[in-house]
Amino acid sequence: MTKINSNYQKLQAGYLFPEIGRRVKAFQQENPQADIIRLGIGDVVLPLAPAIISAMKDAVEEMGTLQGFHGYGPEQGYDFLINAIIQNDYAPRGVQLKNNEVFVSDGSKCDSGNIQEIFDTTCKVAVTDPVYPVYVDTNVMAGRTGAYLTSGHYEGMVYLPANKENQFSPPPPQEKLDIVYLCSPNNPTGATLSREALKAWVDYARQNECIILFDAAYEAFISDPEIPHSIYEIEGAKEVAIEFRSFSKTAGFTGLRCAYTVVPENLKGKNNSGESVSINALWNRRHCTKFNGVSYPVQKAAEACYSPEGQAQIQENIQYYMNNAKTIREGLQKLGIEVFGGDNAPYIWLKTPQNAKSWDFFDQLLTQAHIVGTPGSGFGPSGEGYFRLSAFGLKEKVNEAIERIQKKLQL
Amino acid sequence: MTKINSNYQKLQAGYLFPEIGRRVKAFQQENPQADIIRLGIGDVVLPLAPAIISAMKDAVEEMGTLQGFHGYGPEQGYDFLINAIIQNDYAPRGVQLKNNEVFVSDGSKCDSGNIQEIFDTTCKVAVTDPVYPVYVDTNVMAGRTGAYLTSGHYEGMVYLPANKENQFSPPPPQEKLDIVYLCSPNNPTGATLSREALKAWVDYARQNECIILFDAAYEAFISDPEIPHSIYEIEGAKEVAIEFRSFSKTAGFTGLRCAYTVVPENLKGKNNSGESVSINALWNRRHCTKFNGVSYPVQKAAEACYSPEGQAQIQENIQYYMNNAKTIREGLQKLGIEVFGGDNAPYIWLKTPQNAKSWDFFDQLLTQAHIVGTPGSGFGPSGEGYFRLSAFGLKEKVNEAIERIQKKLQL
Repeated sequence: MTKINSNYQKLQAGYLFPEIGRRVKAFQQENPQADIIRLGIGDVVLPLAPAIISAMKDAVEEMGTLQGFHGYGPEQGYDFLINAIIQNDYAPRGVQLKNNEVFVSDGSKCDSGNIQEIFDTTCKVAVTDPVYPVYVDTNVMAGRTGAYLTSGHYEGMVYLPANKENQFSPPPPQEKLDIVYLCSPNNPTGATLSREALKAWVDYARQNECIILFDAAYEAFISDPEIPHSIYEIEGAKEVAIEFRSFSKTAGFTGLRCAYTVVPENLKGKNNSGESVSINALWNRRHCTKFNGVSYPVQKAAEACYSPEGQAQIQENIQYYMNNAKTIREGLQKLGIEVFGGDNAPYIWLKTPQNAKSWDFFDQLLTQAHIVGTPGSGFGPSGEGYFRLSAFGLKEKVNEAIERIQKKLQL
Repeated sequence: MTKINSNYQKLQAGYLFPEIGRRVKAFQQENPQADIIRLGIGDVVLPLAPAIISAMKDAVEEMGTLQGFHGYGPEQGYDFLINAIIQNDYAPRGVQLKNNEVFVSDGSKCDSGNIQEIFDTTCKVAVTDPVYPVYVDTNVMAGRTGAYLTSGHYEGMVYLPANKENQFSPPPPQEKLDIVYLCSPNNPTGATLSREALKAWVDYARQNECIILFDAAYEAFISDPEIPHSIYEIEGAKEVAIEFRSFSKTAGFTGLRCAYTVVPENLKGKNNSGESVSINALWNRRHCTKFNGVSYPVQKAAEACYSPEGQAQIQENIQYYMNNAKTIREGLQKLGIEVFGGDNAPYIWLKTPQNAKSWDFFDQLLTQAHIVGTPGSGFGPSGEGYFRLSAFGLKEKVNEAIERIQKKLQL
């Protein structure tokens, strides 16, 4: 029989969300009258902004005409979108990018999952703990790790614990890494990396010739003007970092699919002979060989995010979610629960009361208040004793959830 | 510095289409008045069918409402589309599929490029020659080959020559393969695999425990009722084959991006310990970890391809292109040029007159008739002395092209 990629068998079964589903279902069956409110998922709920809908409809109509039909586009994305990205997301922050440094794609999950492919399988890779599972799983699949250990870690991968002691911003380690994944604003902790913290990472990467994979999918939720939105706001970052951005959370594109990745021309790696190689050229080759561009109407929809109306409408939605985050934060704080995140990110990361295990708090919240959240331990062993609540919900539901927690939760 | 995946450096620079572009540009500069007709590319030109446009616009509007908004969908695709695929593309041909055997994606290029990832890097892989380059390049990137040889082949990959002597339908080899890529109707040769030829491959795969990766992206162009549209029309194929299908050429989705891949539950591989492993489960894991589903409006557009109006409109477009193919075939045959394909495929594969080299014929066609095609040698060494013309063009242009060839080409 054909031999499979046995690295896949090292992967832990997707445990977190199926297990949440199982427990919720069991509870609902025993309590059919319970009105369960879900603050567990990271998906948006508000409809797409009118400016986006209008632009996308126009593009669909174009596709029905001989003159306006668009077939295969550039794999890297249309210049109309790349120009809008550079002029709106980077130029105002003092970051100059060339068009060939921006790669439009169908999602940050895809990009942050595929990026490891252009690096050697022997690279030493680090992630923070807790962590967005895609970074880890895709490296396991590629054979960069050993077995899954009872500690909850994979052998051979470096984990940087993020906890309240280090403000969920782990500093660079002593050891030399080849690749490090950083996510700011962070999923799941809601923490952001300050300018100083980011500078420390860029300096580390330059000294150690390490590449930073910087996931900024949630940058639109930053409200503090001191916090960088892009790693390229730090001097020298273009020589050490790749940045991932997404329209998913910024503009509600989770069901439309559009994102982009920045790979600066100055970023270099080395080949087996030690010669310097352009990472931009490698990613371009990967992108053109295994990807065929984003749907034209979706790219037109993404472009509309940058129009004055689009900007205003998107900001309104972000503010809506951030008001939810405020409601959750303050509501929990009133109960004496220690909360993190939720000020520059749509996630609230809370320390479980009485240091309860994450899953025990999950059960308590579900059975006492009929609210679903996400156990922190599901994101990694350092998430044990923490819990994630998402601000992506309807305001009325979020308000009711907090009232219920205040009334029903037995602390 | 971070070590790169050095397998990428084995890849030959994308030579074919850039070189075509270079020669066309040079000719155009010297002959600014020349009206060049392009029959080189494989992209469609007709607008999307009205039924598709209408369904997609409705879906976009839904996305602008609270009730109709769709966020993350199932990575594997919505059931409304999977049901339509199974009921329309398979059930009428006697093929029963379960919903979990169909994976909707954003393109066959992506799927046929990514599929190799779930197999071991030591697998022995075969392709036909000439071949769609993605099959080869993605295996090179994964390290399944050695260097590029002066023969035009990669070391360690098995090439099955497809030529007029074997009707462009190479039989299974004596040697044992782990994976073989077959494409019918074929890009670039336009040839199809008969029921007998496909049965020989399925029997070979069963006897040798080999997996067939069957690319049927052009199946909608089959007019001969004897030719299978799906490999699963052959008994036992579900135990040995994965099938790729696409809306790109069938319904003009090259700029919308939707395709699907069938991975039967009964398909098995083995792990390092020799234990049997479900290929469907592996692909599902890959799909869910590195992909986040196709845009909801695009899936609604794809579903509309199966409505009675959608079917009629799509058939009309296919007939339009096949009329072009007939024009090209018959026009060339009148000149005594030996032509293949073009009857069950949108590509015409011709033997160059006087056994000219592919690139010499390219230059002759460009300079004498101002027509651009694709040199067969660009698809592999066995394509030398052949040439590809595409039927994807406007009727008027195709007619004019053939008239010019008949009048201007000095044979």
